[in-house]
Amino acid sequence: MSETPGLDEESGLHPFELLDAWEVLSTADRLEGFRLLGRHEAEDFFLGRDTEDQLALMLAMAPHERRSWMRLLPPDDAADLVQAAPADERDKLLALLDDASRREVTALLAYAEDDAAGLMTPRYARVRPDMSIDEAISYLRKQARERIETLSYVYVLDAEQRLVGVVSIRELFTAAHDKKVRDVMHAPVISVPEQMDQEAVSRTLRDSGLMAVPVVDAQDHMKGIVTLDDIVDVVEEEATEDIQKMGGTEGLDAPYLKIGMGEMLRKRGGWLAVLFLGELLTATAMGYFENEIAKAVLLALFVPLIISSGGNSGSQACTLVIRAMALGEVKLRDWWRVLRREFASGLALGFLLGSIGFIRILVWQAVFHPYGEHYLRIASTVGASLVGVVLWGTLSGSMLPFILRRVGWDPASASAPLVATLVDVTGLIIYFSFAALFLTGTLL
Amino acid sequence: MSETPGLDEESGLHPFELLDAWEVLSTADRLEGFRLLGRHEAEDFFLGRDTEDQLALMLAMAPHERRSWMRLLPPDDAADLVQAAPADERDKLLALLDDASRREVTALLAYAEDDAAGLMTPRYARVRPDMSIDEAISYLRKQARERIETLSYVYVLDAEQRLVGVVSIRELFTAAHDKKVRDVMHAPVISVPEQMDQEAVSRTLRDSGLMAVPVVDAQDHMKGIVTLDDIVDVVEEEATEDIQKMGGTEGLDAPYLKIGMGEMLRKRGGWLAVLFLGELLTATAMGYFENEIAKAVLLALFVPLIISSGGNSGSQACTLVIRAMALGEVKLRDWWRVLRREFASGLALGFLLGSIGFIRILVWQAVFHPYGEHYLRIASTVGASLVGVVLWGTLSGSMLPFILRRVGWDPASASAPLVATLVDVTGLIIYFSFAALFLTGTLL
Repeated sequence: MSETPGLDEESGLHPFELLDAWEVLSTADRLEGFRLLGRHEAEDFFLGRDTEDQLALMLAMAPHERRSWMRLLPPDDAADLVQAAPADERDKLLALLDDASRREVTALLAYAEDDAAGLMTPRYARVRPDMSIDEAISYLRKQARERIETLSYVYVLDAEQRLVGVVSIRELFTAAHDKKVRDVMHAPVISVPEQMDQEAVSRTLRDSGLMAVPVVDAQDHMKGIVTLDDIVDVVEEEATEDIQKMGGTEGLDAPYLKIGMGEMLRKRGGWLAVLFLGELLTATAMGYFENEIAKAVLLALFVPLIISSGGNSGSQACTLVIRAMALGEVKLRDWWRVLRREFASGLALGFLLGSIGFIRILVWQAVFHPYGEHYLRIASTVGASLVGVVLWGTLSGSMLPFILRRVGWDPASASAPLVATLVDVTGLIIYFSFAALFLTGTLL
Repeated sequence: MSETPGLDEESGLHPFELLDAWEVLSTADRLEGFRLLGRHEAEDFFLGRDTEDQLALMLAMAPHERRSWMRLLPPDDAADLVQAAPADERDKLLALLDDASRREVTALLAYAEDDAAGLMTPRYARVRPDMSIDEAISYLRKQARERIETLSYVYVLDAEQRLVGVVSIRELFTAAHDKKVRDVMHAPVISVPEQMDQEAVSRTLRDSGLMAVPVVDAQDHMKGIVTLDDIVDVVEEEATEDIQKMGGTEGLDAPYLKIGMGEMLRKRGGWLAVLFLGELLTATAMGYFENEIAKAVLLALFVPLIISSGGNSGSQACTLVIRAMALGEVKLRDWWRVLRREFASGLALGFLLGSIGFIRILVWQAVFHPYGEHYLRIASTVGASLVGVVLWGTLSGSMLPFILRRVGWDPASASAPLVATLVDVTGLIIYFSFAALFLTGTLL
């Protein structure tokens, strides 16, 4: 596993230097730089790359070089790499593994990528409940020679491989030598079922405050462990997916600069077209008010202002609620609390914007006189519409994620653009209704 | 650290049951439920809560109960708890600690919360380079009796406490007994300086593929370690802040349901008012085209459609670019690659929406005849404007994050609403310019 420091110092390149230049290097240059690292540093470096980088390096190597790198990977990472490889390379990559590892990796490949079993590694440290502390420690020293993911937690399995307890390496170290594992182990153990979704696994592991959580089947047989480093990736992936959905696109599932143009256009164009079809309703709605606009062209001037204010306040509210849901701060049953909060917020924010709009019209009238004798009625129409539209935008934006979750969809699909589109049409109706109220008999 | 399983089984409540009900319980009920747990389970449960929950539980307890829970916390978590406590409680909480821990926690409180030193714990496992393997292991067994955060990595410090190497517990376990620590340790060690920003620490730790990274001062003196569980929180916090900013609000810095109404309105109202002032320019811009609208009221019908299409495509592009930047997939120097990509995307998406708009007008004309004899010119105006507005929205949305980062601002401030507002005014100018081009001499 380790070499003398002397050997490291001979290498011509420091891993940090390679990492700094990594992003701008071609795959061929990356491989060349990688080969300049000492073996020891190269191993650390390779293990620190993500699956995509590891795969690109491996595929750039001559076939005879690949074996030792493939064998360096823990089985969960090896499974990810095989999954990411082109179909015709997969069997070749699997063939590089020794028989035992290949069986482990093949078993992992059978699981869906985004459930507990898809994240887990089968290489964990194990002892039996009836071992003495000293037996357990010496058994662990043997296991440490194989490549196990972490020694921090030692799982206690009975003769049928059922998980009956867990003990930390520290607790084994500090326990009296004459005790048995059974006496010092923790039970019951926090564990997750193999089909549990990765977001739920992430939440369980983080709530537990532990560095790893065991995965069990329906009969409590231990299948593997999920460690915190996999969870960091899950947290980031889920946030990325939510952000992309909230920005009005499908989750890209690939880095921005690496996704193909056709794929990118499909994921963006689909949503944009749907939103556009929704937005076409504004043209229909405006058609209903064509006579009003013809009589009072002034009314048209404030249309963009009104609808964008509704859209902005809706985006704000839905973003806050979606994120709070994703973090588990807000649950479905909290909808009424959220509604009350957002009603108050929407009203306050509506009065804020309504007042600014009202004052702006009075000031412009005083300076440039553009609005004629009925300027006060116009100012009232705009001000009242802003209160209504902002309140409506805030309420729609905050309730839409609840509705989506209630019917089983992803609340993050309530993208800012979707809310803006929904609010645009209704915003027009609110505006022209206030116009009819304030202006009929004068301008209308 | 551990008790016999028998004691756990006596407890009236299982930690999972308490956790399930946690969100709906009042603080008093939470404390009552917490007291029903066995001591062993209660400790695990307490350590798994976040700072806020821990603080609420502690403050709900009678003062004499608090000591043992305060002393259970590792120093970095204790420091977070003291920082979160009301000002008049802080000294009382610190007084509960033993002298050594209080010194550690007080030292941590001096650091900013979001740099490496603010995340670290000073309780790590250490050995000297000239120890034999057996000496090192027995020295570690002694350290394990104190509360150290993790035994997975053992740091090798010279007589001046400078970090000279690292070795994993597994490597110590498997090394020949007659070797010295110096012979098996890894050097140089990946470490982070104490002032490093938490996002950079997170990136370094994750790139390293390790579970913890050491923090050193300018002279390489070891100050502590940052472990992966702190990084999960950092990744989630940073994503939350980005999402909230992208939704057009300041980062809330508190759970949605717990933040005060005044604070919430301040964080939302500020941005909404700024966006509204920007959006007022649309009224000014529309004012310039008042004569055109008066001559061709039809033009007004498509204003919401045109500007929202620009806003939607802009939101999409800026969301994708901001997230790619946050993930390190896109760097400042990639602006030209992104610009070329987005130019192609914007053009393609513009033609998509432009075609739908064009066809929609032809179909409506065939069925309802609303647009008069010049319907083809109107369809061309709308179609061409959509291409221009979507292209412009896409380019603005994708470049704004680069400009913000270049001038040292957070790219995530390029919220979807901000881009929409910027694009609205220019979208109107594009639309009425195409109208002048296609309709002068007929409708205008």
